[in-house]
Amino acid sequence: MTTAAEPVQASEFDRGTAVRAREGRASVYDAELDGGWRIGGGINGGLLLALVGNALRAELGRDGGHADPLSVSAYYLSAGRPGPAEIRTETVRRGRSVSTGAASLLQTAEDGSPVERLRVLASYGDLSAAEGDVRTSAVPPEMPPPDQCISTEHAPPDFLTQADLLRRLDLRLDPACVGWALGEPSGIGRIQGWLRLADGREPDPLMLLLAVDALPPVTFDLGLMGWTPTLELTAHVRARPVPGWLRVVHSTRNLAGGFLEEDAEVWDESGRLVAQSRQLAAVPRTG
Amino acid sequence: MTTAAEPVQASEFDRGTAVRAREGRASVYDAELDGGWRIGGGINGGLLLALVGNALRAELGRDGGHADPLSVSAYYLSAGRPGPAEIRTETVRRGRSVSTGAASLLQTAEDGSPVERLRVLASYGDLSAAEGDVRTSAVPPEMPPPDQCISTEHAPPDFLTQADLLRRLDLRLDPACVGWALGEPSGIGRIQGWLRLADGREPDPLMLLLAVDALPPVTFDLGLMGWTPTLELTAHVRARPVPGWLRVVHSTRNLAGGFLEEDAEVWDESGRLVAQSRQLAAVPRTG
Repeated sequence: MTTAAEPVQASEFDRGTAVRAREGRASVYDAELDGGWRIGGGINGGLLLALVGNALRAELGRDGGHADPLSVSAYYLSAGRPGPAEIRTETVRRGRSVSTGAASLLQTAEDGSPVERLRVLASYGDLSAAEGDVRTSAVPPEMPPPDQCISTEHAPPDFLTQADLLRRLDLRLDPACVGWALGEPSGIGRIQGWLRLADGREPDPLMLLLAVDALPPVTFDLGLMGWTPTLELTAHVRARPVPGWLRVVHSTRNLAGGFLEEDAEVWDESGRLVAQSRQLAAVPRTG
Repeated sequence: MTTAAEPVQASEFDRGTAVRAREGRASVYDAELDGGWRIGGGINGGLLLALVGNALRAELGRDGGHADPLSVSAYYLSAGRPGPAEIRTETVRRGRSVSTGAASLLQTAEDGSPVERLRVLASYGDLSAAEGDVRTSAVPPEMPPPDQCISTEHAPPDFLTQADLLRRLDLRLDPACVGWALGEPSGIGRIQGWLRLADGREPDPLMLLLAVDALPPVTFDLGLMGWTPTLELTAHVRARPVPGWLRVVHSTRNLAGGFLEEDAEVWDESGRLVAQSRQLAAVPRTG
């Protein structure tokens, strides 16, 4: 049994989110967390979201079910490590136009005990059935074209050594939002840029789950340069993106009491708002 | 065993969200859905969120655990009906500063089979440990004082007959946002007003879970007067509210493909942003 609806592709993203249905264990999938998706102390949270999203796509999409993520909520419990992982899924409800599932991503600790990395709830549907009426009042962010933005190859080397992830992305940050790299954060709480996968793999609904958590933390723009662990992240996929660049905006308005919300908007090259997300993250202790 | 940390109160909200630990069944709670919280075809989604939030508070808060909701994500599966309900909870992870739980609210169908109403993931902590540093750039909404706003007692009678909920709230809508009641929606996608419980019960973190889903749907302001079923709602409680009025703002920017996001912000009488939420809802079919 294959678990993906599409032919196997050679892209780094497809390999990094691949799942194999475990023989003899219904609704359990095996995967491998690849260290190439590391950022800071663990595997990037957006990649984990896309990986679990792929397992839920296999689970909820089989037998003519629902294969497109509409809403995915993840609670992050511990940092993912390179190595084998197991995804246990559950079909919570199969509906006519929307199906809901739950999932848990686990790895094995050194002592052999299971350690849960994230717990997920999600609703899936059919994004191609959802075209037509668009009354958005949101407008795409204005920023210079990609070739006038700051590529991550110019990031400080000690940052890059902890950010394998960045080598798999073609990320061009708006120069107006990178003062923090020079020790002059704007204090506004906004980071935006152009994003695509470095190997040319085009965006699709699963890749948007990576895109909402791929930029540097918005706290950098507030002068807080530490690590911001995510407690919870919910992503809404609102349309199937067209091929090409994505524009991603991260912003926060309320850093208080040790936590901040980080909102992401993802726009495709046609100018459509294709994903929205919000996460609750812990404020870095230093900075 | 009692499940609430505070003395039993006589308020409608406390009665509506009361849970009893089931004897002999660890982590299972019984509750009664009260028809007085009905809106449209079912029990109000915010009240269900607060009810499950109270069960998780009992579960995660016992033995010196974490009793304040920080983030609560609910996936709505079917409409709650007046009558008995069961809440099954699970402690996913008990941490030093944050604990994570899962819960499921079930009722019994006429044929005796269990029907799941909502599935929830949540993180709890201690909001009193989270004072101090506040760098919010969000500003409270401007609106006339409560006595110059529109009370729901002036709502159309055929609307009130389907909205028992409104009798339990003291809700005063900004006159600038109620054109829809006169057949002249603004088209902006924003509804805001003052909110408190009609019986004088003061706001607390649990009550904020009701507040984020208590106003009329923001689609009314877009001229879509039908029912907007919630697929998913995530609420972040960002501070313990002071006593008094809450200001609540509902807004949407992206109605497309049959869905819309509805954002809520809740401000307390001290002018602090105490809760933020976003839901993904289905666009009404008529209107």
